Amino acid sequence: MLEGKKSIVILGHVNPDGDCIGSCLGLYNYLKENYEGLEVSVYLEKMGVKFSFLSGFEDVHTEYDDTKTFDLCITSDASDVPRLGVFAPYRETAKDTFCVDHHITNKGMCRVNVIESWASSASEVVFRLLDKGKISKAVAECLYTGIAHDTGIFKFSNTSRQTMEIAGFLMEKGIDFPKIIDDSFFAKTYGQAKIHGRAVLESVRILDNRCVYTVVTTDELREYGCTVKATDGIVDQLRIIEGIEIAFLLYQTGNPDEYKVSLRTNSAVDVSRIALSFGGGGHVKAAGCTMTGEPQEIVEKISGKIREQWEELK
Amino acid sequence: MLEGKKSIVILGHVNPDGDCIGSCLGLYNYLKENYEGLEVSVYLEKMGVKFSFLSGFEDVHTEYDDTKTFDLCITSDASDVPRLGVFAPYRETAKDTFCVDHHITNKGMCRVNVIESWASSASEVVFRLLDKGKISKAVAECLYTGIAHDTGIFKFSNTSRQTMEIAGFLMEKGIDFPKIIDDSFFAKTYGQAKIHGRAVLESVRILDNRCVYTVVTTDELREYGCTVKATDGIVDQLRIIEGIEIAFLLYQTGNPDEYKVSLRTNSAVDVSRIALSFGGGGHVKAAGCTMTGEPQEIVEKISGKIREQWEELK
Repeated sequence: MLEGKKSIVILGHVNPDGDCIGSCLGLYNYLKENYEGLEVSVYLEKMGVKFSFLSGFEDVHTEYDDTKTFDLCITSDASDVPRLGVFAPYRETAKDTFCVDHHITNKGMCRVNVIESWASSASEVVFRLLDKGKISKAVAECLYTGIAHDTGIFKFSNTSRQTMEIAGFLMEKGIDFPKIIDDSFFAKTYGQAKIHGRAVLESVRILDNRCVYTVVTTDELREYGCTVKATDGIVDQLRIIEGIEIAFLLYQTGNPDEYKVSLRTNSAVDVSRIALSFGGGGHVKAAGCTMTGEPQEIVEKISGKIREQWEELK
Repeated sequence: MLEGKKSIVILGHVNPDGDCIGSCLGLYNYLKENYEGLEVSVYLEKMGVKFSFLSGFEDVHTEYDDTKTFDLCITSDASDVPRLGVFAPYRETAKDTFCVDHHITNKGMCRVNVIESWASSASEVVFRLLDKGKISKAVAECLYTGIAHDTGIFKFSNTSRQTMEIAGFLMEKGIDFPKIIDDSFFAKTYGQAKIHGRAVLESVRILDNRCVYTVVTTDELREYGCTVKATDGIVDQLRIIEGIEIAFLLYQTGNPDEYKVSLRTNSAVDVSRIALSFGGGGHVKAAGCTMTGEPQEIVEKISGKIREQWEELK
């Protein structure tokens, strides 16, 4: 794949997450370390500073440069061309293209495609492509971060025996994995920690205490110096409360009376059906939609849909 | 070890945690499944219901019976005789004794001792003793639970490459590990979730925002239907806030003006020295002590000790 190539560009997906950043930078460091004379560039949208500990973070280009073309374009963790965002033209103009991914919906957008839909993460797929003897601590940090993020720290069902074995191999490279996990995965800003605390404290149990919901307003976010991004994780905190079958979060979008609704379930209820009935979508256990009205009206509507499914399941 | 033995008792430590329960029940299920005719009993103090999904949970004896003696006593995860609690006499009166542990302080209290201080957990040590071909799903659930709990879900530095490989092997037995982690590790009662939310919301940053503390009173615990046990994990939530070097929690013990202080650090400060100076103890990064006075006085005293160490470290 690399033969005769002098310049390589690595692309990920828009709004890059831990796996996208980890797999792209893992590849970047590996190529830089092991192929002298190769020009390697990474183009990604602006990334969270919590990933700044990764080698190569400072080298990432965040703006599209229309004067550039490359011998080889590698896409990682992006399931289709639109997900490449503004950097998509690099794939068009590259002499050769290579796609690494784990999304089942990826139909293969490059000349050569390595798509392992059973893999936990793109980082796991990248790991399998590399010469194990040449994986440095810097590469290990990137790939471990990607795997850890996409598995919710080895908790989601996408985690396989091989995922654990790969993570173990990478951990043995001497990476500070307790710190990686704390700083890049669990860490919150003080404002975010307070928004989460308040959201749980003001949550309300309904439907015989089998459901719980909470509401986060734009004013509250402003009060704690947060954006809506800070609401990530609140609904999961509600979901793991003992006895709770369905948890949902309402947060104001900024438009008057408009709320994003994020739903989670531990039960047989299919929350994607609820989200779908209000114009949203998602998965059986995690879904979302946008609704308008007073929070209490929205809660009533969602409750009605939950009751409907309970009736069906009886 | 089992030759000629007809009755076996398995003991853990007082206030049994996930690893103690997991390793004891892992051994119990393994012996029951593979050695017909063997009488196997487990004696442990009352366990959290969150572990009730483990096979054998219902069979555990929680009361000492002074009429019983056994051919073999196996102790797991207990570092010394006092840690066996009221069940310690079973070790005294058994014809043979066997100790499985991972505590570096364990000096060996049985005739045969397998103490691997580098292991993540007693469950990991137990795993290595078993015939891998005979590990059932029920045994895998127990040992996985033990390993996951003692590593903070593969996050603490005691997690080795082999720990990951063992966990991977156990996961492949078809256990529902996402549910095990959620229900036995992350789950909180509604009252506990609210106590945590409130504790974070009312926390105070001090010392140039490098430290954060919070106070939980007996009245608050009562309001949310919680015991002091519900405060577990609060100080860790504070520790992972961005920019925080030292976090501490004060909670009322029930005696007037008496507070337990729980300290955590991400920095070079040795919190065990702070705890020690107030009659407590612990580890470099996690320590505790009991102090009397108004919360504000206690906070001043702790702050003074933090400043002292900062001066030294300059």
